[in-house]
Amino acid sequence: MPVSKEIHLKSRPAGVPVPDNFELVETNISDPGDGELLVQNIFMSVDPYMRGRMREEWPTDHVLMGGAVGKVVASNNTDFAVGDHVNNQLGWREYFISNGQGLNKVDASIAPLSAYLGVMGMPGLTAYGGLLVTGELKDGESVFVSAASGAVGSVVGQIAKIKKCTVIGSAGSDDKVAQLVDEYGFDHAFNYKTDDPLTELRKGAPQGIDVYFENVGGKQLEAALTHMRTHGRIPICGMISHYNDDGTASPGPTNLMEAIYKFITLRGFVVSAFMDQQAQFLKDMSGWIQSGQMKYHETILEGIEKAPEAFIGLFSGSNNGKMLVKISDDS
Amino acid sequence: MPVSKEIHLKSRPAGVPVPDNFELVETNISDPGDGELLVQNIFMSVDPYMRGRMREEWPTDHVLMGGAVGKVVASNNTDFAVGDHVNNQLGWREYFISNGQGLNKVDASIAPLSAYLGVMGMPGLTAYGGLLVTGELKDGESVFVSAASGAVGSVVGQIAKIKKCTVIGSAGSDDKVAQLVDEYGFDHAFNYKTDDPLTELRKGAPQGIDVYFENVGGKQLEAALTHMRTHGRIPICGMISHYNDDGTASPGPTNLMEAIYKFITLRGFVVSAFMDQQAQFLKDMSGWIQSGQMKYHETILEGIEKAPEAFIGLFSGSNNGKMLVKISDDS
Repeated sequence: MPVSKEIHLKSRPAGVPVPDNFELVETNISDPGDGELLVQNIFMSVDPYMRGRMREEWPTDHVLMGGAVGKVVASNNTDFAVGDHVNNQLGWREYFISNGQGLNKVDASIAPLSAYLGVMGMPGLTAYGGLLVTGELKDGESVFVSAASGAVGSVVGQIAKIKKCTVIGSAGSDDKVAQLVDEYGFDHAFNYKTDDPLTELRKGAPQGIDVYFENVGGKQLEAALTHMRTHGRIPICGMISHYNDDGTASPGPTNLMEAIYKFITLRGFVVSAFMDQQAQFLKDMSGWIQSGQMKYHETILEGIEKAPEAFIGLFSGSNNGKMLVKISDDS
Repeated sequence: MPVSKEIHLKSRPAGVPVPDNFELVETNISDPGDGELLVQNIFMSVDPYMRGRMREEWPTDHVLMGGAVGKVVASNNTDFAVGDHVNNQLGWREYFISNGQGLNKVDASIAPLSAYLGVMGMPGLTAYGGLLVTGELKDGESVFVSAASGAVGSVVGQIAKIKKCTVIGSAGSDDKVAQLVDEYGFDHAFNYKTDDPLTELRKGAPQGIDVYFENVGGKQLEAALTHMRTHGRIPICGMISHYNDDGTASPGPTNLMEAIYKFITLRGFVVSAFMDQQAQFLKDMSGWIQSGQMKYHETILEGIEKAPEAFIGLFSGSNNGKMLVKISDDS
């Protein structure tokens, strides 16, 4: 009957979230009943999409939710044995009781546990499906991805390179920009805080962009529309520059009309659209990781107390690659 | 060797076009040479898309271009006989010499000549292809079309009714709003100058919109995004509220993020995408006209001198249905 520390949403963020929006609460966890199991989380994920859910959907004074990987520490469920590793949607807490629904076993022998919250998990599948299915990427095209050093963006760029594309990425620091080119193999990269996006797109892809993988919105979307080629595609994965817009919604692109004469398609999606691609995705991705074609970084904060700080850091770009919180050791 | 009056672009419009941007010029037309023919235009079309071309593409101090229907008055071309009616892209002038390229004969016995600039012509095919091909309309869905009493919008709404859809339209006067419901058979209509678009969409389609046929931009696009159903489609035909934005581009929708969770597709198109649908379009459309399912209105100004006034009137909505200029009698 462990005591579980968990993070509650204390109040709804106004603009950029602050530590006061969150509260650490201790809860007594009961023993698992018939058919139930007890999971101890090892890693939890913080993701930009959570900001949207905090606007209305998720209740205040209630534990938050999100992707996590844990280990089974007690089980009365024949499908799960003590020691199994399970992917779950009950992050932001140390322990939970489950009847097994919504848990997926993961194989720690083909990829590290933390990767199942990144390249092998939701962000990886988001990148894979958004680029190949929604974006209808063809070999050899020109691709621009914003927030390119993030968990999704870095996978987008590397898949595009595997598909023999010209790849441009943007990030928010010169170190990250260097990493995009030197480590992830991007053809061109720029710092969106100091460089003009349109100038950089023209530099990196003089003939124009076929696919813009949209993570950010704002001026980068405008530049992409202007520099888009005929029949270009813009899979809209996120618009992090707008996530903290409460009350004062920032305007959309002034040049959506570019879409008309260039037959551009903008299409929103979330990862649930690609659940039927999951098996092929895991096969492709584990192969790319093992062959060295897919690299990834993680920024890991230690201790569930750090979860709010990790989440808030997403909006200032304090992460390099996937932002995670380590909740316990895998032992 | 007739003298032809024609309209030149004298200066590029800044904002809404004014009469001074145009100039009436008289030109001597030579006799047709070998293989050539002389065409006298009967009707010419003014269309919103022309505003965009005046920004850069079309030269100043040069005759303008656009759809027209004329008659062959002299011919040394075996493909065309005196008296033939031809659709052409050389409007804004009384006469022209042609070698026959770009001319299409039209049949005045199955539809009035002027209709070949409207429901049977480019605006009709734009509506047909934009709704059925780009918009992927399914029978029985909910459709919203802005600028619904215009040449394209009125056809969009009536095709949607033929396809058993719930149809909402917006227009800029109470008379036009009444016409949408009483004559074109729309289920609901509103005056975008006095009514709140989102309130009206909720009234006309409580379950949400499946297809928004976008002609306008601005607040109507925002309302449509908010009230769109999952997997909704927004074929972007035009954004007339932005056409006169020179220098002071008005912002795009603040809520493009709605596209993400609702898997919305926005897709630009121009009529050239549907050239391979032309035969089926003419067959369907002439059938609908003859059965009384497709009604249309024309606003016809008399004399080529009125062409600038007709064009400028598009931006204040002074037309009811297709705006045309009658250049000569068909005799």
